[in-house]
Amino acid sequence: MSPREEAVQTMSNSPKQTLVDIQSSHDERNIAIDKVGVRNVKYPMYVRERDNGPQHTHGVFTLTVDLPREYKGTHMSRFLEVLGDHNHDLSVETIPHVLAKLREKLHADTAHLEVRFTLFREKAAPVTGKVGMMGYECGFSATGGTTNCFELLLTVPVTTLCPCSKEISSFGAHNQRGYVSVRVKPNGETLWLEDVIDMIEACGSAQLYPVLKRPDEKFVTEQAYENPRFVEDMVREVALAFDKDDRVKAYEIEVENHESIHDHNAYAFLKREKE
Amino acid sequence: MSPREEAVQTMSNSPKQTLVDIQSSHDERNIAIDKVGVRNVKYPMYVRERDNGPQHTHGVFTLTVDLPREYKGTHMSRFLEVLGDHNHDLSVETIPHVLAKLREKLHADTAHLEVRFTLFREKAAPVTGKVGMMGYECGFSATGGTTNCFELLLTVPVTTLCPCSKEISSFGAHNQRGYVSVRVKPNGETLWLEDVIDMIEACGSAQLYPVLKRPDEKFVTEQAYENPRFVEDMVREVALAFDKDDRVKAYEIEVENHESIHDHNAYAFLKREKE
Amino acid sequence: MSPREEAVQTMSNSPKQTLVDIQSSHDERNIAIDKVGVRNVKYPMYVRERDNGPQHTHGVFTLTVDLPREYKGTHMSRFLEVLGDHNHDLSVETIPHVLAKLREKLHADTAHLEVRFTLFREKAAPVTGKVGMMGYECGFSATGGTTNCFELLLTVPVTTLCPCSKEISSFGAHNQRGYVSVRVKPNGETLWLEDVIDMIEACGSAQLYPVLKRPDEKFVTEQAYENPRFVEDMVREVALAFDKDDRVKAYEIEVENHESIHDHNAYAFLKREKE
Amino acid sequence: MSPREEAVQTMSNSPKQTLVDIQSSHDERNIAIDKVGVRNVKYPMYVRERDNGPQHTHGVFTLTVDLPREYKGTHMSRFLEVLGDHNHDLSVETIPHVLAKLREKLHADTAHLEVRFTLFREKAAPVTGKVGMMGYECGFSATGGTTNCFELLLTVPVTTLCPCSKEISSFGAHNQRGYVSVRVKPNGETLWLEDVIDMIEACGSAQLYPVLKRPDEKFVTEQAYENPRFVEDMVREVALAFDKDDRVKAYEIEVENHESIHDHNAYAFLKREKE
Repeated sequence: MSPREEAVQTMSNSPKQTLVDIQSSHDERNIAIDKVGVRNVKYPMYVRERDNGPQHTHGVFTLTVDLPREYKGTHMSRFLEVLGDHNHDLSVETIPHVLAKLREKLHADTAHLEVRFTLFREKAAPVTGKVGMMGYECGFSATGGTTNCFELLLTVPVTTLCPCSKEISSFGAHNQRGYVSVRVKPNGETLWLEDVIDMIEACGSAQLYPVLKRPDEKFVTEQAYENPRFVEDMVREVALAFDKDDRVKAYEIEVENHESIHDHNAYAFLKREKE
Repeated sequence: MSPREEAVQTMSNSPKQTLVDIQSSHDERNIAIDKVGVRNVKYPMYVRERDNGPQHTHGVFTLTVDLPREYKGTHMSRFLEVLGDHNHDLSVETIPHVLAKLREKLHADTAHLEVRFTLFREKAAPVTGKVGMMGYECGFSATGGTTNCFELLLTVPVTTLCPCSKEISSFGAHNQRGYVSVRVKPNGETLWLEDVIDMIEACGSAQLYPVLKRPDEKFVTEQAYENPRFVEDMVREVALAFDKDDRVKAYEIEVENHESIHDHNAYAFLKREKE
Repeated sequence: MSPREEAVQTMSNSPKQTLVDIQSSHDERNIAIDKVGVRNVKYPMYVRERDNGPQHTHGVFTLTVDLPREYKGTHMSRFLEVLGDHNHDLSVETIPHVLAKLREKLHADTAHLEVRFTLFREKAAPVTGKVGMMGYECGFSATGGTTNCFELLLTVPVTTLCPCSKEISSFGAHNQRGYVSVRVKPNGETLWLEDVIDMIEACGSAQLYPVLKRPDEKFVTEQAYENPRFVEDMVREVALAFDKDDRVKAYEIEVENHESIHDHNAYAFLKREKE
Repeated sequence: MSPREEAVQTMSNSPKQTLVDIQSSHDERNIAIDKVGVRNVKYPMYVRERDNGPQHTHGVFTLTVDLPREYKGTHMSRFLEVLGDHNHDLSVETIPHVLAKLREKLHADTAHLEVRFTLFREKAAPVTGKVGMMGYECGFSATGGTTNCFELLLTVPVTTLCPCSKEISSFGAHNQRGYVSVRVKPNGETLWLEDVIDMIEACGSAQLYPVLKRPDEKFVTEQAYENPRFVEDMVREVALAFDKDDRVKAYEIEVENHESIHDHNAYAFLKREKE
């Protein structure tokens, strides 16, 4: 029997009845940690829809709490236990309860939740009315405790047609898929993900659709040509829409056009706190 | 009025009542296309579970058909229409109907469907029995028409502990998350995604779990140390499991260990047709 | 002193002078492995350019060999050693030497190398001649030993403008960035990555450029409008170009248009072995 | 001749000698934009090394400027022209010149540059001294104009071994690859990317290496077992190292362990402004 095998056997025989809670031991380094927890947690969830009951989807979660300077570590398994108890209905109204439970179970002052998920909506073609489902990348970012914060996260794809290309060219104009990514802080009143999607889609040269028959394709092609938009126009139009809506308190807007004439993207960014 | 504006106005005024079906026009290049269709289509779907009713999830689809040499193009919108009609229950039994409908609507000899989705299963910790959900990346790849084929696709994460590191070290052994990716061709009889997951998870140094309390963590740590596995061991163990199961007709196995001691991965690949 | 601490101390004191080569031990499972090695290895490299000396870049490598049924494992560190010795000039001519060295050092019948890297080329705007650098995602896939194979891998972005949208619309036409991905098997004679890029770029509605001033943008906009291309047209045009070139022996072509009017992509695929 | 064809012909014949600069036209929306420019620009570049001359690599750039409320758009091609002139030597010392040039050419008050690239370093195994190259994901984030800022960005992989798993288990301990991502604001004095890498690698349970022979693997396995680290330990140890170094003025540290026993990651985050 090799020394290692012997040693292992010795260890296997010695029952360790008490499993030390090493996380709760005292830490001497005197450094509080802003956020500690779990990330990239895939979990089934329900998100409340504006026009229907809760929609079943799944999210990718980051769940964290602060860790005071005196503790060596947090208890990671408890985040999963809280998530398992609270994924039944995630929305502006219910997330504060999840945060409260995280603070309680982890003995923390502040808790954070960020989740990304795909929200599906039925979408009808603009002329024929043919219906299909379109998936939107959405999310919530929330903090509860010594500070409180709630944000809606969305990335909405649109068509953008270049005003310069249209103006200088004898015919045609380059256009492409653009992605509008926003963080929106609501002002207390209910602001649905669907409301924000509607506001953003109204700002593009044209909207995207799952199903387009020929009369629809003619419609969106001509509509885009008649509504050219730079990335600069996109951030400004979305900003105007958010400025007009009292339910929006603060926002960040990021637009990225996957230029059809370049291998790089056109980009614009705008951040505002309304008062 | 600029020449372009004038021209555009002229065009706008001329009603185009008939929208030419340019896709159906004759193509002179004399080149048949193997696969043409749509890719990266996100769509809600239901997948049949072994132990419960259908599970709601969403998939990322590629849908294609062959295109004979004489046609200029296919009709992309029809793929979305067929998908919208058939996403209610996707499984070994129902996918042939989707393929038949694609062939019919696209006037094609052969149709292909590939879909990737996350399947969630409840999973209990090995000692305390604490339960959480674990999401598995799954998929189906199917061909119907002049050739027929059906494959289950899965990527299952496991713990792998290095036999060499254990053997040569006085204590400890490096271990890491490994990913086992398989394509499995069933032999007619029903083979569930869950069956394949179970087979693969039994081959690792230890399984992964959503929730592990201290007694569970002690268990999986010691279990892994007692069951060291190279990537070579992993492909062979999974191959043995597939060889023993008569429902498996052919398979590909790919294992990638995200080595904890390197910034690169250890990798093994095996492909077999049973007879 | 806890039992574990005692055990660990015992183990630390026992010198393990001979480090067993566990990989070379006999394997009883009787399963040969097709490919075993390392993946996702980032390494600096030089790739030979058609029009200049070797270009410095870095690659992401997969290096594998076959493993006979009687061995438990391969020796992963040797792959890195061979790579370190041979990354100075990777091309059609030199890769066979790397494969030979891998077979020798790993006592294997067959070795495989796959590498992906970015190749930069100077590219001038079509009217003003303004110059910038454009990076192309390239690669080599090679097998040497009992079977021999060599393929060039490329993904080349182009502009594609929809023929249907142009035909049915009174003005404008949707267009977007499309990605043409190919695997090309040369027929012995030298076929440069740059040759393949040139062939593919000539097939799009227009090419992409790093720098476009206004006269250039007018040019590419109008050029695209005058050269509409479906994904079906793209695979056929590239196939025609490959068919005409005797240096090409076999090929796979995959085109994916990031449709500006949909959130999904149009897709076509073609695979041919010549004569 | 169809109306569209006629129209197109009309347009083609009318020479557009003056190409309107639509970007410079007046914008009525009264919204200044924080950042506008180009993103995902791949470009070859040289980065200054601490121990050698400049290293050739390539970067992925975001280049932006502010846009005053009165202008409709910026001039995207100029970003590429400035980049083409200044990619020869990017470092703490030279980036301010790039930013100055961007402000000048775009008539902007403030310019931003963010670039991500792979930096390769030779790294020797800890016992045998066998040498290989290891690539580190690095970057710079810089702002110049009405505000000034400069940050080093790095993601350094390390081995982390779980203190809890070690303590409660009779033998073994789960370990994994962890990723330490930092943003570091230097205090004027030169702080090399290599300095930050060295500080971070010293904080792990063990370092990662490109080449490890058996005596090296024994060494790193035992070293990791003797130096267990939670994500909480990692952020604190790196914070201590940054606190001790006067060249560091402010920092953010993010650690993510790809847990070998879970399919999710352990995560910790810390942000500090010194004094």
